[in-house]
Amino acid sequence: MNDVSISGGRLLKRIFKLGSVGRDAEGLTRLAASDTDKLGRDQLVRWLQQAGLEVAVDRIGNIFGVWQPAPTRHMAPVMVGSHIDTVINAGMYDGCYGVLAGLEVIQSLKEQDFEPARPIVVAAFTNEEGVRFAPDMMGSLVYAGGLALNEALATIGTDGSILADELRRIGYAGDKAPGYMKPHAYVELHIEQGPILEREGRAIGAVENLQGISWRKITIDGTANHAGTTPISMRADAGYGAARITTYLRERARTSATQTVATVGCLTLEPNAINVIPSRATLTVDLRDPFEHRLREEEAALDDFLKRLAEEEALRISVETLSRSSPVSFSQDIVATVEAAAGKRGLSCRRMTSGAGHDAQMIAAVAPTAMIFVPSAGGISHNPAEHSSEADLIAGARVLLDVVCAIARR
Amino acid sequence: MNDVSISGGRLLKRIFKLGSVGRDAEGLTRLAASDTDKLGRDQLVRWLQQAGLEVAVDRIGNIFGVWQPAPTRHMAPVMVGSHIDTVINAGMYDGCYGVLAGLEVIQSLKEQDFEPARPIVVAAFTNEEGVRFAPDMMGSLVYAGGLALNEALATIGTDGSILADELRRIGYAGDKAPGYMKPHAYVELHIEQGPILEREGRAIGAVENLQGISWRKITIDGTANHAGTTPISMRADAGYGAARITTYLRERARTSATQTVATVGCLTLEPNAINVIPSRATLTVDLRDPFEHRLREEEAALDDFLKRLAEEEALRISVETLSRSSPVSFSQDIVATVEAAAGKRGLSCRRMTSGAGHDAQMIAAVAPTAMIFVPSAGGISHNPAEHSSEADLIAGARVLLDVVCAIARR
Repeated sequence: MNDVSISGGRLLKRIFKLGSVGRDAEGLTRLAASDTDKLGRDQLVRWLQQAGLEVAVDRIGNIFGVWQPAPTRHMAPVMVGSHIDTVINAGMYDGCYGVLAGLEVIQSLKEQDFEPARPIVVAAFTNEEGVRFAPDMMGSLVYAGGLALNEALATIGTDGSILADELRRIGYAGDKAPGYMKPHAYVELHIEQGPILEREGRAIGAVENLQGISWRKITIDGTANHAGTTPISMRADAGYGAARITTYLRERARTSATQTVATVGCLTLEPNAINVIPSRATLTVDLRDPFEHRLREEEAALDDFLKRLAEEEALRISVETLSRSSPVSFSQDIVATVEAAAGKRGLSCRRMTSGAGHDAQMIAAVAPTAMIFVPSAGGISHNPAEHSSEADLIAGARVLLDVVCAIARR
Repeated sequence: MNDVSISGGRLLKRIFKLGSVGRDAEGLTRLAASDTDKLGRDQLVRWLQQAGLEVAVDRIGNIFGVWQPAPTRHMAPVMVGSHIDTVINAGMYDGCYGVLAGLEVIQSLKEQDFEPARPIVVAAFTNEEGVRFAPDMMGSLVYAGGLALNEALATIGTDGSILADELRRIGYAGDKAPGYMKPHAYVELHIEQGPILEREGRAIGAVENLQGISWRKITIDGTANHAGTTPISMRADAGYGAARITTYLRERARTSATQTVATVGCLTLEPNAINVIPSRATLTVDLRDPFEHRLREEEAALDDFLKRLAEEEALRISVETLSRSSPVSFSQDIVATVEAAAGKRGLSCRRMTSGAGHDAQMIAAVAPTAMIFVPSAGGISHNPAEHSSEADLIAGARVLLDVVCAIARR
């Protein structure tokens, strides 16, 4: 247990307040570098200043609230944070929770005269959602050196705007070089956006890794034919091929001891007529696993299956890779610190894998990193119904406090 | 072997000529009661008149070429025929072959002084395809008393026209009451529109029955969820449900000793996004079997499967019947006559089931009926690539001749 305490009421008030910025009759929307994103950023900066933190903005628009007592100035900082941009018609917890809890932790430590051995910084990374400008997690990616600043700034948005112009327009084209502070450690607190903690009745997830993602588009060509006059044995049914892929992926995921998940999210048939055997099926496969070798195994097994299927069913099958990211392993040391902190607080905790992408996966390339999850009601996110209980939000912030103290004391 | 012979050259010339009527840069199209259908009908009527047949038209526009030598006038006729309307961008054999071969048979018998014991009639039924006016097989259905004349005439077309008006406009609202001639027997010669005869190297199909058809629309509701954060065990994946139905139907048809065929022709997913577990799948099932009790068994088995699937996968599944027709059994006597005729001509023949609907299934309600099939190249129909070899077309017409002679002699 820590001597320092946070103000749960102040944290919740800020979450609700920020959740009202950019909200209209259509819902809550703060797309990156938009007018509403500017309003959210302005609100955050006011709070950072009120807490007595130095505010820095880098050239990709990442915002930092820095607390560096004089004796710590030569040390690499402990960084916490997340993002405050949103999807269209969003909930108010995704990202914002991690940024505002980070601010609450630093403000509480400062107010209660905690003496850190390192600076402590809260970061709000630009364009995590990637809805208006691709790719997602852009601010942290640029910060970690994974994407050149100029290339990122030249990104053209879905509305034809250029990111550099938009950042300048809203006043968040900063002067710091991305990556100017190399963190000693990075800890991101986030809602789970999945159902596991709630289903298991646990308060805290100690996130030890993040799934790699393989996105493929599969096109199956068969032969259109009459549904009544073509015997089953003479069919080359592209729709049946798609069904076989879907059931193959499910059975493989279900019977495996791994954490692989597989999803067929998109599927269309041609000619899509009730009495015509489908000549073409186009489908997508989303494969995820927290271990690179397993993700590769699954990809190879799918390739093998498609070859067999094409032969057995007289189909022509082609595969296109739409996107591929490798899994990320977080710092075992920080994960253990999260577990220990939850344990001391009497909170039920489990190690887990993040199924979604987060800024932490980018920062993990330059600093020891981990994440802390709190339960999402019904596993729902990217949706106005996104919800986490006040008790869970406060518990998560307390664990973040304890983890930051533990690291900043070293 | 018959003493009478047909003129294969005349038959083929007429098929190619009728196949040019209503053809433009877009292909061959003679939708029922359209301007191009009128041109096709006018051409047919000229040929019937040139052959010395009486031409009669009934109130639903069915055209009859009647040969009734004086001694036969009190007898019920032997009827042959099919239809000359087409789908959009059609081939030139579907329907037309049966009508023109029927004309060729009667004309040859007449020219070669055959003395029938009964009148012989060739019929061209209105609107078999049902593309412009629903339902299909309308002319024969009305003729057999399965649909009231006034109801059929009031049918509104896809272009907003009324069938009665269109028949009047093109000059084919005749004066005969549908069904005014009750056939002694009906024999329809048709291209197979399927691959079986070609695949087996047979020249003639003796069609002994016609599949019943069950069309259903199945709606599956699951839960949309994140493809990365939702473990397989916590999913209610509507797309996976659709895949299970598709593979169930295939396995059941493949492992069964029956002739059941099952097709999933239409399938759509919602929200149809690569990283979202499908919340809804909508699909169609086309089930066909030549025996009513088996079709019912398959329908019931599918219902049972859907119940189990809904329970196992936490899905809500609803079923709507879109269309249902019972199988039709043809006259064993005529089928045997077809087999005998093919045998005497040295043509390889098999009994078979029609997978598609035909006018014969309607006329079967009022007279002993059967069909004769000839091979379709690649099983292709309703397509410009529809093709049957000249040798097969002539062989089929010769079998029709022999069957008509056999029945008309009795």
